[in-house]
Amino acid sequence: MHLLSDLLGRPATEIDTPALVVDLDAMERNLATMAAFAAKHKVKLRPHAKMHKSATLAKLQMAHGAVGVCVQKTSEAEALAGLGVNNIYISNEVVSPFKLKRVVAVARELDDLGGQLAIAVDSLEGVKRLAHAAHGQHTLIRVLVEIDVGQGRCGVTPGSAGVALVEEIKRHPSLQFDGLQAYHGRAQHLRSVAERQQSIAQVISDVKATQAALQAAGHAVPLVTGAGTGTFALEAASGVYGELQAGSYLFMDRDYAGNEHDPAQPSFEHALFVKSQVMSVCASHAVIDAGHKCHAIDSGLPAVHGLALEYANGGDEHGILRGAVLPALGDTVWLIPGHCDPTVNLHDHLLGVRGGLGHGTVEQIIRVDGRGALT
Amino acid sequence: MHLLSDLLGRPATEIDTPALVVDLDAMERNLATMAAFAAKHKVKLRPHAKMHKSATLAKLQMAHGAVGVCVQKTSEAEALAGLGVNNIYISNEVVSPFKLKRVVAVARELDDLGGQLAIAVDSLEGVKRLAHAAHGQHTLIRVLVEIDVGQGRCGVTPGSAGVALVEEIKRHPSLQFDGLQAYHGRAQHLRSVAERQQSIAQVISDVKATQAALQAAGHAVPLVTGAGTGTFALEAASGVYGELQAGSYLFMDRDYAGNEHDPAQPSFEHALFVKSQVMSVCASHAVIDAGHKCHAIDSGLPAVHGLALEYANGGDEHGILRGAVLPALGDTVWLIPGHCDPTVNLHDHLLGVRGGLGHGTVEQIIRVDGRGALT
Repeated sequence: MHLLSDLLGRPATEIDTPALVVDLDAMERNLATMAAFAAKHKVKLRPHAKMHKSATLAKLQMAHGAVGVCVQKTSEAEALAGLGVNNIYISNEVVSPFKLKRVVAVARELDDLGGQLAIAVDSLEGVKRLAHAAHGQHTLIRVLVEIDVGQGRCGVTPGSAGVALVEEIKRHPSLQFDGLQAYHGRAQHLRSVAERQQSIAQVISDVKATQAALQAAGHAVPLVTGAGTGTFALEAASGVYGELQAGSYLFMDRDYAGNEHDPAQPSFEHALFVKSQVMSVCASHAVIDAGHKCHAIDSGLPAVHGLALEYANGGDEHGILRGAVLPALGDTVWLIPGHCDPTVNLHDHLLGVRGGLGHGTVEQIIRVDGRGALT
Repeated sequence: MHLLSDLLGRPATEIDTPALVVDLDAMERNLATMAAFAAKHKVKLRPHAKMHKSATLAKLQMAHGAVGVCVQKTSEAEALAGLGVNNIYISNEVVSPFKLKRVVAVARELDDLGGQLAIAVDSLEGVKRLAHAAHGQHTLIRVLVEIDVGQGRCGVTPGSAGVALVEEIKRHPSLQFDGLQAYHGRAQHLRSVAERQQSIAQVISDVKATQAALQAAGHAVPLVTGAGTGTFALEAASGVYGELQAGSYLFMDRDYAGNEHDPAQPSFEHALFVKSQVMSVCASHAVIDAGHKCHAIDSGLPAVHGLALEYANGGDEHGILRGAVLPALGDTVWLIPGHCDPTVNLHDHLLGVRGGLGHGTVEQIIRVDGRGALT
């Protein structure tokens, strides 16, 4: 078992640890659930591929009705475009002239694939630099103006601040104004339904104020895009969002599972696990071979799947398990990562298992094509 | 500038962001400082290569007097051995029979390179499995018995608990008892000198009690190995430690810089930086293109180098800067990561700059050979 591909068709028990494993059955149920939701609510789905960074999974989502995917980084767009994903939106600002040349090259690549590229902006300077890079390059780049709907990060102030940007976009024949980027990341993780409702109500009010200001200045807003796995039913019901960017629904992490369930939203299953092994045991605790080089801890520590054990941080390479009944040396322990996006980014591959974690078979090796794609 | 190698000889200003950059001048001063300390105190140096995971840097440390390197993972040993690093100690337990076969294969590889492999154990079962894997494989594996000197993770209880393990090791001609692994990771990060002194005094007392128990049972202890960048002067002065495992001294992170300085220890400089760019600015803050997919935050957020700015977590791909004077759109901002080990593990390459960050030149591209080497 020296090559990863030797694992194909083998029992999941043979997966060396630690490893990132996808329960394919659960993932496919999540995929179908989200596709059905979008169809029912007549809203487009553009899942955020920053979560999985995989061309295979991006294409799977598009085969299940997604219009395309989002990414955060130029290099993620390059990785996915190079593998045939033809509709990509960089939902983030790029201002480096060097990177903007790369953005334009991706746009041309997507044209050749029969698709399209879009990107977000939040400054006049950013629009000008993008237009400069695109000028004379025989491509049309879709541009979304980002508004800060409460995240306190990028984006112009809601209301009329976006008008000047839209006007600048419209000055350049290589650019096309496509609408508004309006995403409130922190609202996704507010625990109670009431808090999320309140927060997204403000988001929607900000979006409407911006739409009104743009329309008053003579600019139609073709699309509003945003939303995440914590709140998307609220954006879908708003009547103003045309596109949902939720990504984590595919894998579901421990953090999202901590949200109070909103009956308006469908439920998703955990589909992403770290397989780990007990490497040391003493009277008080067991130590497993998965630390935070294996799963991200920005949103808290992983949960232990199916066992009454508490995971404590044992550093970069170790996890410490405590509980009334400790596992034995050599035992397998499955973890549910706190946050899927940065966890996937730590791994080169996801091992897709069919038929359950314990008794299933390795069916697919999914490459994390954009792993480490930071620029 | 589409290939990384095109950057060689170019100004550091041309490094695309975000990127992990090593100040080669500072790193080399750290290297010389540590080599001088070890020589003066007549203690061997075996830096922990889990920090940089690079064969190039491991060989550089060995060229500056290190006897070899430590790693935490079998796959790290494989990555370094495959590139000619010939003296490796896996300072961690391995109990999977599959992985133990790989450990033995690395031992044979190191024999061929004129070097040697060592590994830690903390259970009878672990020794037996290791011996089973090594039996008849024509190699001799050095074995260190790990004792838990306060970390509360792996290791047997100090005192006589190790005797049975040493006796089991000695039953197998393919194994050789080499001494004790005694590392207290948390003590490295106690802020005051007094706390670190108190903690390491207990460590040394535990080591001595274990040495005495082993000697009483007729077992000489050839070596005690351990220590980190926060406390190594204390272990070096103890008279019982023969080998220091400090690794972070080479790059120095923000967390270690937060320790009260112990006059018994030499000082080290920050040599590892994230180069980032301002991608969005508003009245209250600036946003840079480096979030926690770019630098680990397990030991806190990065510091901003040379500017009176506070870095706030902006999520996976963004950092938020606040301060009286904000940088402008497109400006370069250099970050000092909170913790070097898991930060390096996020990157495929380190860009080595000579002549200062701002005005220097890219001299070297250092591959992170063991990036993602988790098993």
